[in-house]
Amino acid sequence: MSAKGLVKRNQDFSKWYNELVAKADLAEHSDVRGCMIIKPYGYAIWEKIKEQLDQMFKDTGHQNAYFPLFIPKSYLSKEADHVDGFAKECAVVTHYRLKNAEDGSGVVVDPNAKLEEELIVRPTSETIIWNTYKKWIQSYRDLPILVNQWANVVRWEMRTRLFLRTSEFLWQEGHTAHATKQEAVEETEKMLEVYATFVEKNMATAVIKGLKTENERFAGAVETYCIEALMQDGKALQAGTSHFLGQNFAKAFDVTFADKSGKQNHVWATSWGVSTRLMGALIMTHSDDNGLVLPPKLAPIQVVIVPIYRNEDQLSSISNYASVLVKELKAKGISVKYDDDDSKKPGWKFAEYEMKGVPLRIAIGPRDLENKTVELARRDTLTKEIVPQDDVIENITTLLVTIQDDLFNRSKNFTISNTRSANSIDEMNEILNKDGGFIEAYWDGSKESELKIKDLTKATIRCIPLDSKEKGNCILTGKQGSQKVVFARAY
Amino acid sequence: MSAKGLVKRNQDFSKWYNELVAKADLAEHSDVRGCMIIKPYGYAIWEKIKEQLDQMFKDTGHQNAYFPLFIPKSYLSKEADHVDGFAKECAVVTHYRLKNAEDGSGVVVDPNAKLEEELIVRPTSETIIWNTYKKWIQSYRDLPILVNQWANVVRWEMRTRLFLRTSEFLWQEGHTAHATKQEAVEETEKMLEVYATFVEKNMATAVIKGLKTENERFAGAVETYCIEALMQDGKALQAGTSHFLGQNFAKAFDVTFADKSGKQNHVWATSWGVSTRLMGALIMTHSDDNGLVLPPKLAPIQVVIVPIYRNEDQLSSISNYASVLVKELKAKGISVKYDDDDSKKPGWKFAEYEMKGVPLRIAIGPRDLENKTVELARRDTLTKEIVPQDDVIENITTLLVTIQDDLFNRSKNFTISNTRSANSIDEMNEILNKDGGFIEAYWDGSKESELKIKDLTKATIRCIPLDSKEKGNCILTGKQGSQKVVFARAY
Repeated sequence: MSAKGLVKRNQDFSKWYNELVAKADLAEHSDVRGCMIIKPYGYAIWEKIKEQLDQMFKDTGHQNAYFPLFIPKSYLSKEADHVDGFAKECAVVTHYRLKNAEDGSGVVVDPNAKLEEELIVRPTSETIIWNTYKKWIQSYRDLPILVNQWANVVRWEMRTRLFLRTSEFLWQEGHTAHATKQEAVEETEKMLEVYATFVEKNMATAVIKGLKTENERFAGAVETYCIEALMQDGKALQAGTSHFLGQNFAKAFDVTFADKSGKQNHVWATSWGVSTRLMGALIMTHSDDNGLVLPPKLAPIQVVIVPIYRNEDQLSSISNYASVLVKELKAKGISVKYDDDDSKKPGWKFAEYEMKGVPLRIAIGPRDLENKTVELARRDTLTKEIVPQDDVIENITTLLVTIQDDLFNRSKNFTISNTRSANSIDEMNEILNKDGGFIEAYWDGSKESELKIKDLTKATIRCIPLDSKEKGNCILTGKQGSQKVVFARAY
Repeated sequence: MSAKGLVKRNQDFSKWYNELVAKADLAEHSDVRGCMIIKPYGYAIWEKIKEQLDQMFKDTGHQNAYFPLFIPKSYLSKEADHVDGFAKECAVVTHYRLKNAEDGSGVVVDPNAKLEEELIVRPTSETIIWNTYKKWIQSYRDLPILVNQWANVVRWEMRTRLFLRTSEFLWQEGHTAHATKQEAVEETEKMLEVYATFVEKNMATAVIKGLKTENERFAGAVETYCIEALMQDGKALQAGTSHFLGQNFAKAFDVTFADKSGKQNHVWATSWGVSTRLMGALIMTHSDDNGLVLPPKLAPIQVVIVPIYRNEDQLSSISNYASVLVKELKAKGISVKYDDDDSKKPGWKFAEYEMKGVPLRIAIGPRDLENKTVELARRDTLTKEIVPQDDVIENITTLLVTIQDDLFNRSKNFTISNTRSANSIDEMNEILNKDGGFIEAYWDGSKESELKIKDLTKATIRCIPLDSKEKGNCILTGKQGSQKVVFARAY
């Protein structure tokens, strides 16, 4: 795969993204409409995301479980908002057998194997899970249930983009059950905090935390909390959501528990999820015109060592030293690759590992061996320095932390400097067309105004920030006492 | 969940299994025909299986990736044997949208949203993956491809049993591509060896390794290697398979590569998989009339500590000591739970952790504190001993290794003592009806004889052992020079 020829971000951001996903070997479209293939290098990054999030879920008392891929059509219908939200994009299983065509033309669906009730490939699992919780919950002693599932889900999409919007995607969905409203709200907020912490500390991507408007809420939720991140092109991306479901699903599936006094109450619920969409956020936050830039915590390879040599003797001396270095780095828990593939030139390798976002590159040539130095290059800043071999381990250990911090600070500063206020629709459009970014403005709280503003600006309310207290005049209607919200054009 | 009342194995093994799966909180049937719910405790065991196998795959050079859930119907048909093998048990997606019924009766499938080509929920992924490899492979430099996928698959089953046979199950499927036949065969054998090592060393379950007969071969394979294990009821269970696919899929999907001389050749393939079926093998190999017995390497909780006390003062003293013990055990990488739940009695906890197969139980009472001892109980042997507190960490560390070894040796000895020879169909039936187990016998190699023997005995050829060299007279036809194979009635 050539590491050359990425279009520049400021020329065509969308094309840059597509080329990068392909050239960094992250993912590709399959022949199955809207379904992606996550390639080994892309999947290795997703595995890191999974492992680190999974540990955070377990540290907050959650356990994993697994529920069926298929949901009977009637279950989906039990919660009215829920079915409205998902019915239009469902993959529907209607038959359970193929047979040979009578005309010998191949296999066809066997009409005798029609299901009595159609099955929906899960777009999300609230219904099948709450149907199960009904059996698990009798008394307050059975609560809380703190369960998470890593799974694939399907939402039929007409316009797809790798990682950002695909018909099948991978995600986790937490589904918890509680005895009280307060406990469920606390869980919803706790998991939003877990997401925000992961995205900021591990993905090095700054987020704002807030509530969705009713219009943007999850189908079936009482309240949807979200984290929103700003991509380099000034568009927002919803990175994770945590829903307080109230008693909606407990009522739809008749899930009650006996409290300490023996009284029957409906159970309170939350659900929360992040998906392979995070891969899109990761790419669009940090990467540059040379390719992917990865925060060290999520890099499958944190350090690559490239030997520079003219003959076998030189290679052999370099390899001797490199093998010591590899061993020492591994002992520190740093993932390192020594690339002595002799069918590729160093320049090709430099470009390739830049494309793949490896945070640190060490180049070692004969003169380095003489001088007891190495050349150490940072992917994020593209800067190089000559480092004494005696200091190299310490330098790398420190630099990996520095890069992680610097990437986050860059994202944070970018977000701050691209958050602007607007007092009129014209002003909002002017900002959006020039710079994009988050726009703080007052909104009167009505769905009509929200949709009208969207019509006029192509911007949506990303969230009502959790710390939003200020009041002012609605940007559309001028209504006094309107609340401050954050608008953006979004993925 | 009560830990009481498991039917005994020798009364009704099948019922014992079902009750155990329920009472140990491993899994349950969902309302969706044939699909199971893996409960948190069962899933925690599966996670251990996954993690350990995944590390073994990575240690042998494999990378994970992810391919689509859906397979276009025409792809499945491209390899003739393959479609014959899977067409009869496919979940078929025909539509991609629901809509509100015109009579207001709920949601119905939208007839306007019919797919041009039906999609099959993957029963296995050879076809979609080889369709992809076509794009990944041009030259010998692109080979080998060593990819694995952790995924859910669906094979519509009419008669299901939790873990053993479910319509949806979880598994991994490795799919590798090679330049030469020899390399592909070596890979097939290597992965069989990885499976055998995992099942014997980590699951503590003895296996025999062999080849499947043509009749039992994977649909599309040239050769299927397998590991077979013997369950306590004398029935065999196929625990893993590794397939040499020859060039069948490369030819079906036209996947060729240019070798060093520039000549185009078809690529050689393997695939290999193990599934949540391993959970069934794990349960039926080790467990007893008191519940689950887990080898320490796969136990989510390796040591449970139960305090025995009459008052708060006693509990407080015990808890002080227990917290030190917990810390020391965790530092050794041992997973430990201190159960000081005061709503349950010690006897109830003992039964519960026996049911859940926790390998070691420590009980601590006031007298133990006085004497500086603890009571240490083994789940596998149900034996107890009093151990000085000074020796407890060392004892536990040693015992976890001992239990792992003892369980394997028990399984190995059981398999050896339940492997018998038969020289006639009557003799085979006599053994099968009395003891079950593996039966070594000669078979003339014909499909007719194989099926006839199955008719007469309900036993199938589990495998042609890899070390099988002896020749003799076929148990059915008396034909001389027949090869020795292993029969059993099987899950």
